[in-house]
Amino acid sequence: MNAPIDTKLDLVLKREIKAPIDLVWRGLTDPELVKQWFCPKPWGVSECRIDLRPGGEFYTVMVDTDGNEYPGTSCFVEVEKEKKLTWTTTMHANYRPAPPFQKGDKECAEMPMTAIVTLEEEGNITHYTAHVMHNTEAYRIKHEEMGFNEGWGTAVTQLQDLLTRIE
Amino acid sequence: MNAPIDTKLDLVLKREIKAPIDLVWRGLTDPELVKQWFCPKPWGVSECRIDLRPGGEFYTVMVDTDGNEYPGTSCFVEVEKEKKLTWTTTMHANYRPAPPFQKGDKECAEMPMTAIVTLEEEGNITHYTAHVMHNTEAYRIKHEEMGFNEGWGTAVTQLQDLLTRIE
Repeated sequence: MNAPIDTKLDLVLKREIKAPIDLVWRGLTDPELVKQWFCPKPWGVSECRIDLRPGGEFYTVMVDTDGNEYPGTSCFVEVEKEKKLTWTTTMHANYRPAPPFQKGDKECAEMPMTAIVTLEEEGNITHYTAHVMHNTEAYRIKHEEMGFNEGWGTAVTQLQDLLTRIE
Repeated sequence: MNAPIDTKLDLVLKREIKAPIDLVWRGLTDPELVKQWFCPKPWGVSECRIDLRPGGEFYTVMVDTDGNEYPGTSCFVEVEKEKKLTWTTTMHANYRPAPPFQKGDKECAEMPMTAIVTLEEEGNITHYTAHVMHNTEAYRIKHEEMGFNEGWGTAVTQLQDLLTRIE
């Protein structure tokens, strides 16, 4: 069952990726690949851990051009191979509630969200949909203004480029 | 895989329920039954909705002796029939992050937690374990001081009494 989209609270990005679905899934779930596309360049990802099961940890460290690090921890809640991958920042490994936001944490850690990525194959193309759920309209607007479409869009373009090279 | 217990952050209640496991599961998941035992008397539960699937809503309204209502919404994350039931207050239906705590909300809504209830059958007895995970030691202590053991313990006694009557 797909979660209904609430246009006040949610952001959605749809893209066609020119790669077969098994390769897209690998790109989404292999930490060594995720490190290469997950963050729009010139920023990068210095660390990534993926425990691919419901309740498993999804950990990344983004790095800006000055070398500042922005760690982020999520928890997978749905793992359906080559179909659906859902993770939430509201929890850490084994469904433990995420620690409360502390002054000094990087801004993005403040915004609770759940991301649902669904894939569908059509010929040589994989339809990619990212549905990101927030808990307030203010956070949806903030995320939009932080450049959700450009950011996630660029990341998905980087994913496609990467997949072309490893095919 | 069972979540490891962190004694600084977690509370655990173990009980033996004198009822077969299928009946205990029914008691945990049938909203009409949950209304009868989930809250230690003389408080009660006036409403209960259970959408029994990972991502499904778990909604209860507790009522004190003056008729004041304390609604609570959680999201199921693990539903393994007659084995394990896990829900978290950090999310609402379909894994949407729970709304931020507002001044005026009832106190218990402030404390994020995930509860994992596991069942194991041994003869005519069902071993019941509730493992409640918090995100700070302060919340664990607070929950303990609010009477976790007595509260959940009394509720489980009420569950057993109820099951005897419907057997």
